[in-house]
Amino acid sequence: MEILHSKPVEDGFSMPAEFSPHSGCILIWPHRRDSWQNGAYAARTAFAELISIISRSEKVTVCARFEDYDEARRLLPAGVRVVEMSSDDSWARDVAPTFVTNGKKLRGIDWGFNAWGGLYDGLYFPWDKDNKMARKLCDLFMADCYDLRDFILEGGSIHTDGEGTLLTTEECLLGKGRNPQLSRQQIEQKLCSCLGVSKVIWLKRGIYNDETNGHIDNICAFTAPGEVVLAWTDDKDDPQYEISKECLDILESSCDARGRRIRVHKLPLPRPVHITEEECQGLDNMDGEPTRTPGERLAASYVNFYISNENVIVPFFGDENDKKAAEILGSLFPGREVAGISARDILIGGGNIHCITQQIPAVE
Amino acid sequence: MEILHSKPVEDGFSMPAEFSPHSGCILIWPHRRDSWQNGAYAARTAFAELISIISRSEKVTVCARFEDYDEARRLLPAGVRVVEMSSDDSWARDVAPTFVTNGKKLRGIDWGFNAWGGLYDGLYFPWDKDNKMARKLCDLFMADCYDLRDFILEGGSIHTDGEGTLLTTEECLLGKGRNPQLSRQQIEQKLCSCLGVSKVIWLKRGIYNDETNGHIDNICAFTAPGEVVLAWTDDKDDPQYEISKECLDILESSCDARGRRIRVHKLPLPRPVHITEEECQGLDNMDGEPTRTPGERLAASYVNFYISNENVIVPFFGDENDKKAAEILGSLFPGREVAGISARDILIGGGNIHCITQQIPAVE
Repeated sequence: MEILHSKPVEDGFSMPAEFSPHSGCILIWPHRRDSWQNGAYAARTAFAELISIISRSEKVTVCARFEDYDEARRLLPAGVRVVEMSSDDSWARDVAPTFVTNGKKLRGIDWGFNAWGGLYDGLYFPWDKDNKMARKLCDLFMADCYDLRDFILEGGSIHTDGEGTLLTTEECLLGKGRNPQLSRQQIEQKLCSCLGVSKVIWLKRGIYNDETNGHIDNICAFTAPGEVVLAWTDDKDDPQYEISKECLDILESSCDARGRRIRVHKLPLPRPVHITEEECQGLDNMDGEPTRTPGERLAASYVNFYISNENVIVPFFGDENDKKAAEILGSLFPGREVAGISARDILIGGGNIHCITQQIPAVE
Repeated sequence: MEILHSKPVEDGFSMPAEFSPHSGCILIWPHRRDSWQNGAYAARTAFAELISIISRSEKVTVCARFEDYDEARRLLPAGVRVVEMSSDDSWARDVAPTFVTNGKKLRGIDWGFNAWGGLYDGLYFPWDKDNKMARKLCDLFMADCYDLRDFILEGGSIHTDGEGTLLTTEECLLGKGRNPQLSRQQIEQKLCSCLGVSKVIWLKRGIYNDETNGHIDNICAFTAPGEVVLAWTDDKDDPQYEISKECLDILESSCDARGRRIRVHKLPLPRPVHITEEECQGLDNMDGEPTRTPGERLAASYVNFYISNENVIVPFFGDENDKKAAEILGSLFPGREVAGISARDILIGGGNIHCITQQIPAVE
C-alpha cells in the first residue's frame, strides 16, 4: 500500500454512488458495552442478519477484535470473511476508508476521525483504534491510500450521486467539533478535490437528536442521479417537521452538478422511538455517566438503508410505516429486492444500517 | 471459510513441496521481548531485509499486533501487505496454516500449537494467540480450513518433497510434549492422511541444542524430489557430529515414496555460535528467569533457508562457511538466485529464516 499525498481528483479518481456496483462491503463486529445493549449481544443478532443479506450479492469482510473473533466467526455465514482488527466501536461508514476509483483501480481515503466531535462534543475517548482502521483496511484490500488525516470527516456525513453532486449538512461539516479552522468554502474545495464532485448541496440540519451532529445519511440519500429520499413527517408539532421542511425547500430549489432539478421523494418517518428504562439498564455507563436516559428520543429513520448489489436493506422499527417505507424504496430501486431488518438494537447504538456498512466499489 | 472435519487426502488435497511455485508468503512481525533482543528492534532489521527479498517474487503478508502495525508498515516496502493480527511470538512456520491444494483450490490445516511442548517442555505460556492464527489466516486468505487442533504439529517439524515423501524427526514428533497419547504408527497415519504422503522418513534428532525438540527444518531439507541437504560437520568432537552422522546413515539407507534412493548433499555448519553476555542483556527475563545464558550454544544452521519463487534465502553468520553454503545451495537450485541475510539476530530468537516464513502454494 502506497501512502499518497496528492488529491484523488488530480489522479483521476472519484467516489462512485452507492447504487453503483460493489465488489464488497466492510462491517465491524459490535462490542462496545456503553453503546450496545447487554455487552453488545443484543445487536449481534441484527448485525448477523444484515451481514447475511449483504453476503448474498457482495463479498463481506467483518472486522472483529481479537477477543471477539471466535464468536463472530461462529455466528456469521462461512462465505463471510472475518479478520482481526482493533476498533473503539463499530461504525464502518465513519471509520472505514471512503473508496474512490478511476474505473480500473481502487484507492481509499483515510480521513481524520475524532469520534464525531473530538474533545469538543465527541461521543467517546479515546478513538485511536478507530482512526487507524481506514489505513489498515486499505492495506488489507491492497488499495493505495490517500493520507487526509488532517481533515476530519466521517463517511456518514456525505452522499454522492456519482455524477458530480454531493449532499451534506451544515450542522455536521460546519460544526465546531470537526474542522473549525476551515471555512465553508475551504471545506467545499476539499470535498471537490477528494471526491470528484463539483456541486455541494448543503442541507441545514440532520435528524432531530441525532448525536452525529446531523449526518446526512440519516435524513437524505440519493436513490439515483437527480433523485433523493428525504425523511419526512407531516406532524407539525414534531421538532423534526421544521428540519425536514427546511431540507425540502433547499432541495427543491437546488440543481445538481449536471443542472438537473432535484426530485424529492418523501420517506415517512416512524413514530418517534424512545429508549426504555429496561434498555438503558442494558448499557454500561461511560466514565461514570449513563450514555442514554430512559425516554430519550432516538434518531430513527428509514433513510439509513444500505444499497447492496441486489438488495436495499432497510431498518424496521415495528412501526406501521415500516411497510410504507419499504414500498417507496422498492419503487425507487426497481432492480433490487427490499429487505427489512428489525433494527431497534442497532438504533440504540446511535445509528443504523447505513452507519455500520461501507461499500467497496467494483472496478474492472 | 468453511471449517472442515474431513481429512485433506480424502478430499484430494496434499501439501506441495516448498520448491513448487508460491502465490505468497506469510510472516509475523517480531515483538516478544524475551525472545528478541532490545525489545525486538534488533531482529526487525533482518526481518525487513528478508521480507524485502521475498517480496521480489511473492506477495508477502506480514501479521503485526495492533501496537506494532504502524512501525511494521513504516519499515516494510509498500508492496508488502501488513495486517493486524495478535500473536504470542513470530514463528509463522509453526503457527500459520500448513497449506494443501488439489491443484485448483487452496485449503489450510489448523494444527494444534502448544509452544513446542506445552506444559511439558514448551517455551512460553500462554500460547493462545499463536494457536488461533492458523484459522484466522485461512479466513484472511478465504481458504477453507481443516480442523486438526487435536493433533499438535508445527510446520517446522515436517518437510515434504511434493511426491509422497515426508521428512521428520523422532526427537520432535515422538516427544512427550506433543502427542504422547499417539503411537508412532498413529502419527504416521495422521501425517499421511493430512499431507498426502505415503512414506515418512524418520531421522532421530535435530540440531544440537535446538529448543524446538529437533525440528527437521534446521537439519535437513529437500532441494528436489529424492535430494536433500543435511547440516554437517567433520568435527568428531562436536556433539553435532554424531547427530548428523546418524541422520546420514538413515537417509542413505532410505528410499522415498517413489522408490528412489535419497541423495544427500552435506551442507557444512558454521563454527558453533554462542550467545554473548551483551546479547543476553538485551533480552527480558521470562517469569523472572533468563531465557538465554551467556555462552549458550545457539542452533545455527544453513539448512534453515527459505525457497521463494526466485530466490533461496540463506542465513549468514559471519562465518567462513557462509560462502560455501551459498555455493552449494546455488548449485542445487539452478533456477534461483541465492541471497544471504545476516541472521544472528534471528538466530538469537531461537530459529531462523525458514522458521519465520510460511509459503502459500500457487493454484490455478
